[in-house]
Amino acid sequence: MTLSDSTALGRTILERADELARFSDSPDHYTRTWLTPAHRAAAGRIAGWMREAGLEVRTDGAGSVIGRYEGAKPGAKAVVTGSHFDSVRNGGRYDGVLGILVPIACVAELSRRGERLAHAIEVVAFSDEEGARYQTSFLASRAWLGRFDTALLGRKDADGIRFDEAMREAGVDPAAIAAHPRDPATIAAYLEVHIEQGPVLLDAGLALGVVTAIAGGTRHKVRVLGEAGHAGTVPMAMRHDALAAAAEMVSAVEARAKATAGLVGTVGLLEVKDGTGNVIPGEVSFTVDLRSIDEGVKEGAVGDVLAAFDAIAARRGVKVEAVRTHGVRATRCSPRLQDLLAESVAAEGVPVKRLASGAGHDAMVVAEVAEVAMLFVRCGAGGVSHNPAETITAGDAGLAVAALGGFLRRFDVQGG
Amino acid sequence: MTLSDSTALGRTILERADELARFSDSPDHYTRTWLTPAHRAAAGRIAGWMREAGLEVRTDGAGSVIGRYEGAKPGAKAVVTGSHFDSVRNGGRYDGVLGILVPIACVAELSRRGERLAHAIEVVAFSDEEGARYQTSFLASRAWLGRFDTALLGRKDADGIRFDEAMREAGVDPAAIAAHPRDPATIAAYLEVHIEQGPVLLDAGLALGVVTAIAGGTRHKVRVLGEAGHAGTVPMAMRHDALAAAAEMVSAVEARAKATAGLVGTVGLLEVKDGTGNVIPGEVSFTVDLRSIDEGVKEGAVGDVLAAFDAIAARRGVKVEAVRTHGVRATRCSPRLQDLLAESVAAEGVPVKRLASGAGHDAMVVAEVAEVAMLFVRCGAGGVSHNPAETITAGDAGLAVAALGGFLRRFDVQGG
Repeated sequence: MTLSDSTALGRTILERADELARFSDSPDHYTRTWLTPAHRAAAGRIAGWMREAGLEVRTDGAGSVIGRYEGAKPGAKAVVTGSHFDSVRNGGRYDGVLGILVPIACVAELSRRGERLAHAIEVVAFSDEEGARYQTSFLASRAWLGRFDTALLGRKDADGIRFDEAMREAGVDPAAIAAHPRDPATIAAYLEVHIEQGPVLLDAGLALGVVTAIAGGTRHKVRVLGEAGHAGTVPMAMRHDALAAAAEMVSAVEARAKATAGLVGTVGLLEVKDGTGNVIPGEVSFTVDLRSIDEGVKEGAVGDVLAAFDAIAARRGVKVEAVRTHGVRATRCSPRLQDLLAESVAAEGVPVKRLASGAGHDAMVVAEVAEVAMLFVRCGAGGVSHNPAETITAGDAGLAVAALGGFLRRFDVQGG
Repeated sequence: MTLSDSTALGRTILERADELARFSDSPDHYTRTWLTPAHRAAAGRIAGWMREAGLEVRTDGAGSVIGRYEGAKPGAKAVVTGSHFDSVRNGGRYDGVLGILVPIACVAELSRRGERLAHAIEVVAFSDEEGARYQTSFLASRAWLGRFDTALLGRKDADGIRFDEAMREAGVDPAAIAAHPRDPATIAAYLEVHIEQGPVLLDAGLALGVVTAIAGGTRHKVRVLGEAGHAGTVPMAMRHDALAAAAEMVSAVEARAKATAGLVGTVGLLEVKDGTGNVIPGEVSFTVDLRSIDEGVKEGAVGDVLAAFDAIAARRGVKVEAVRTHGVRATRCSPRLQDLLAESVAAEGVPVKRLASGAGHDAMVVAEVAEVAMLFVRCGAGGVSHNPAETITAGDAGLAVAALGGFLRRFDVQGG
């Protein structure tokens, strides 16, 4: 939509992202995990901005904040747009948050002009997508759709606090986490604005991009059981060192991922149980994350990696157990919504670039029940994300507000 | 010495080791680290047994418990014998503790008979040798000799508790930690009884062994600095993954140690900073422990390993920093004391086996100021140590009491 000064709106978005980043679990860096005091304070701030923008606000059973801007007729289907406000440890301040602040700015513009569209607009601030606290994935968007896995209630965080205790401490009822699922029939479409988290738009010199598909990902938790022993007294040939085995497995993941274009593989977490300098590690656990736009490529890599783990374990006389903890299939964005989004981007004078998303997003979960689209915003600093160096410009944020506004209008006219 | 029933004495030692193992920092397993409540309770129990045995007891500035059994003439030089009562995490209950309980039993026998030797006997229960809490090495024996490194006072444990705070919390004055160093001129000899922590005596079918030398060891703390990033969006070729680099370094340590007989290399601790499943690790730290009886072999391996780290880091575009945090030179046991000990072992009907120690011991520190010897006791369960499966027999413990008693008498006659 035509904005009086989109860069000024963009500056407000950057200021709000700065302010939200101060709600952190750590005084040293930006880390905001599910239901911590910082997380609840951030939820409150987001709810305040939603109300100022003219949205009616409620909080759902997973602690997500949902604001609704009614359409011309009350009770109309909603175009839902949102993203998450939790972060990885020591993360970047726009990841997730941008997809909440841009829609709020957009609704504020409509509200200021007293304008209602045929559809309602709902802005959803998902409480947990990264899952850093409980090693979950898409916790909030799943709960929002009534697809919560109750087995999680007994899981413990790094401090030993149980999932359901954490909920009660935050004043949220564990029994109600997915008690009021969103009816898919009331969702007209889902659109997620997100920082690209990669260098493609930056390299192309473009502020915005239209996402074609989101890479599928699987996560495994792997445990290697060797034999603990004294670092000085057990000859090398007699060892069953769990860390030496795990190190070889980490190298195997990397080698397999390097062997196929478009495949990525990451061991992001590795822990030595009871680790100390003078003890041969007896137990090591680690995660394996494998992703590709192509399901066949990804699943082929999973099979190869697990076979490599077994071979390494057998040769070294250690045990290995791998459990798939998380899996999302590669997701195609709706061609119809992509085209509407492309028109809206072009209308702001930005040449249309279509690109795939290597990162997973809440849109993947929502795609199970509704058509989805994603608008990427250029990521500065070489495309770095999940990192404090993550950055965007006020101009780009403003263009995102304008393009989202254009999309909402076009959807009412052409796509509703 | 001739004992009425050495197996009965051995049984008492095993019962005491069981009792001490219940003084643990964890309810789930045996872990006793420096100056925790469990550690101070263990110190109290040891002091009680020392008093019962007829020793005069004091506690030194590092929380070690020292008991003295006067010689025939008060103020005589002392034969010092002892070991440590801290443990590694989830450790074995005889490691260290045996070298405290055997001498106490020995003095109790002398005391019961009202017998005094020409030399005094001092039993030292060192408060910290493993250094699991503050990643120290030989903390207590160094402090006992006035060789404490005051830089440690500011170091923090895993819970963020500073070294000097931990001392004050335990009622120990940080300023006095090494204020009253033991005068080396008053030490006639040092003998340490210790579980072998390896399979040599077990394989040879022998209860006791005489140690010839103790392997030298160096410990490095290594930090790898790569670049954190999103696990889905950064192509493999553009990554600077600190964990993938560290994994290759772990493999390099293992390969180098395997290449030379008698050399052992261990990465016992490895931590991924802010590790989480969907983030490329930006920083990893780990320890490297290298040991050999031969100083040249050990130092050659250190040089090779650090050069390999540099090459790996350069190839991957990450930074690596390695700091030597601990080093002990290989130590020869006194030939004279070895021979006295061998006679004492043979006198108990045990064929004399001389063997090297792959593990480090407080004797290495004391060797800087006095002649030292070590008596090894057979380790069951395949020679496993630093592990809950660590075990010894009552018969072997009783033979150790007898051999140590014999050594003390022979030392007075031949060696003093």
